[in-house]
Amino acid sequence: MLAGIMDQPEFPQVPQHAAFADGLTLECGTHLARLVVAYRTYGTLNAARSNAILICHALTGDQYVAETHPLTGKPGWWEAVVGPGKPIDTDRYFVICSNVIGGCLGSSGPASPRDDESGRPWGPDFPPITIADMVRAQKRLVEHLGIDRLFAVIGGSMGGMQVLQWAALYPASVFAAVPIATAAWHSAQNIAFNEVGRQSIFADPDWQAGRYGETDAMPARGLAVARMVAHITYLSEEALTRKFGRRQRSGPVGANALFGDMFEVESYLRHQGSTFVNRFDANSYLTITRACDYFDLAAEHGGDLSAAFAGTRTRFCLISFSSDWLYPTAESRTIARALNRAAANVSFVEIASDKGHDAFLLDEPDFHRTLAGFLAGCAEHAGLAA
Amino acid sequence: MLAGIMDQPEFPQVPQHAAFADGLTLECGTHLARLVVAYRTYGTLNAARSNAILICHALTGDQYVAETHPLTGKPGWWEAVVGPGKPIDTDRYFVICSNVIGGCLGSSGPASPRDDESGRPWGPDFPPITIADMVRAQKRLVEHLGIDRLFAVIGGSMGGMQVLQWAALYPASVFAAVPIATAAWHSAQNIAFNEVGRQSIFADPDWQAGRYGETDAMPARGLAVARMVAHITYLSEEALTRKFGRRQRSGPVGANALFGDMFEVESYLRHQGSTFVNRFDANSYLTITRACDYFDLAAEHGGDLSAAFAGTRTRFCLISFSSDWLYPTAESRTIARALNRAAANVSFVEIASDKGHDAFLLDEPDFHRTLAGFLAGCAEHAGLAA
Repeated sequence: MLAGIMDQPEFPQVPQHAAFADGLTLECGTHLARLVVAYRTYGTLNAARSNAILICHALTGDQYVAETHPLTGKPGWWEAVVGPGKPIDTDRYFVICSNVIGGCLGSSGPASPRDDESGRPWGPDFPPITIADMVRAQKRLVEHLGIDRLFAVIGGSMGGMQVLQWAALYPASVFAAVPIATAAWHSAQNIAFNEVGRQSIFADPDWQAGRYGETDAMPARGLAVARMVAHITYLSEEALTRKFGRRQRSGPVGANALFGDMFEVESYLRHQGSTFVNRFDANSYLTITRACDYFDLAAEHGGDLSAAFAGTRTRFCLISFSSDWLYPTAESRTIARALNRAAANVSFVEIASDKGHDAFLLDEPDFHRTLAGFLAGCAEHAGLAA
Repeated sequence: MLAGIMDQPEFPQVPQHAAFADGLTLECGTHLARLVVAYRTYGTLNAARSNAILICHALTGDQYVAETHPLTGKPGWWEAVVGPGKPIDTDRYFVICSNVIGGCLGSSGPASPRDDESGRPWGPDFPPITIADMVRAQKRLVEHLGIDRLFAVIGGSMGGMQVLQWAALYPASVFAAVPIATAAWHSAQNIAFNEVGRQSIFADPDWQAGRYGETDAMPARGLAVARMVAHITYLSEEALTRKFGRRQRSGPVGANALFGDMFEVESYLRHQGSTFVNRFDANSYLTITRACDYFDLAAEHGGDLSAAFAGTRTRFCLISFSSDWLYPTAESRTIARALNRAAANVSFVEIASDKGHDAFLLDEPDFHRTLAGFLAGCAEHAGLAA
């Protein structure tokens, strides 16, 4: 099914996308002659165009926030949070989510046709992109939809980086910002785990120096291992112990058992790896993990994170989860301090949860109450009718 | 060089090894007709044969504790701790370290010739082994050296599991036991990280279902990725940040920079991966990680860890490191509680260190003082002359 998308230069099966004929100049200096941003919306834009919420997705997320995913047939990735009557209430807000550029679900990325007439995919020649590039593409989409100011920009993990970048780049266009379970720069450990995933893809001979899109093969094994190692970082040790412990699927130690499924956690990870490759492109994985590793909002501002938010009037709500060891609470605290130094309007809530980084995607009532409450308060300040 | 060892059924270049013609029956039920245990010793066994210390090595360690490694040319892996005047003083103690069975530096393992006359290596047909199998092979070696009772058994990480297993299997043969930075069973997260490493090896087409030993190839890429992910777990986030932070090796974001060396931590991990494959066998990695994952000293005793140590007279010193997240202090505390329930003589020290799991291999003065002090006290109780 993935191959189907890569074979379709015009993405006809992507129901909503905006094409920008003037392209986009990226931070690396390369000009993308053709910019496509695939997106989905939920709810209705009000007459004043003041009730729009942009949701920014995480590394392997996509625009299918609150509806069945067309490739996997599974529910949208944030249906726990987005929908009628949910914390991000689509009866009240107009919700937009776009596939990040560099991604593989319709927006310009390594699987898209390159800018020449060859019809060949970019593959490894797709230029390196940054979180700011993703945000600039989203800004084009938001303008295309006729929206000057977003009521809120919300996202977790890499989505949270985009939220921070939005607030830094376009402060007048962001009334409220909710960076969740995120960081203002990638730590050495974050980079290290991403690098293992990349090396795993590079090690797969089917990667073919990134040119697999011109062949029938794809580096499924390498991508699956990349997903497996990343998935461990999304869960806390407590969550893994509670879900799987040391439960085994087959019999006791035996001569044939050495390399079979033994522990339930192994079977789970293998499943995570093998299903992921049906919905994700390896070159996109390389491109987007690189964008995360490059991200350093302080370095962009002379090493002073607070300078990124100088004079901001955006209302911030930072949310972290106590057992998240990928983007621990300390990272959110660093952002909160920088916002305080910038005299910004900021709330900071650490949600007690033993579910690790993934908590932001799960049914966490305290998190949902925090989010709904913050948005309700902001809506009042923004003069949005309830 | 690794291939050289695998090609030599009699391990002529392993300077010390004991061969047991009656073999060893493994926990899985398979009888190894030929058991070889490669080892090194340091210091002198006293006339009473009462000053022997067995050191148990970790997953990728070997018997070259305190001398230049014959393959890498690097110092022995525990020269900071073992040697004349060191915490494990070879002027005073007779130190033994053997390559674990399942390993690849001379002891019976997947690269050894199988029990038939074919001369072919075991490869993936080498039977699954357990920590207890490793310990039983060590016991044979110790008896072969004429030693009834070890003054101490000491080891970190997987070495610590062997120490616990020694104390449980042969309490009368262990006067003192020092399990360092270890656990009484592998957690779901431990298993998950090991499984990623295994899947990375399986994904390498050069693995050839484990039969690479009969060809010119070896799954170097898969094994390197396995090493990389494991290596991250050996270091704390603090240690990675201090060592590498976000320092980059090449220039700023550019069109050609996407897949090159960018961050120093990446370069470091790649180096760790690529050098590892010159000294380690992939099937050994699979076999030994499995042994760690199987390890569950409580399950072996009806779910009650204290039953493993019932009636023990061994003196225990448990040592953990505050920033070790692979085998966190909580794991040592669990062991300490079980030993207390068994009314054992136990000390438990958490060493403050920000170096992560690897701290047990590094220059950590508090750790070294703790170890030297414990051994000195035990020597007095054992009536060993200073």
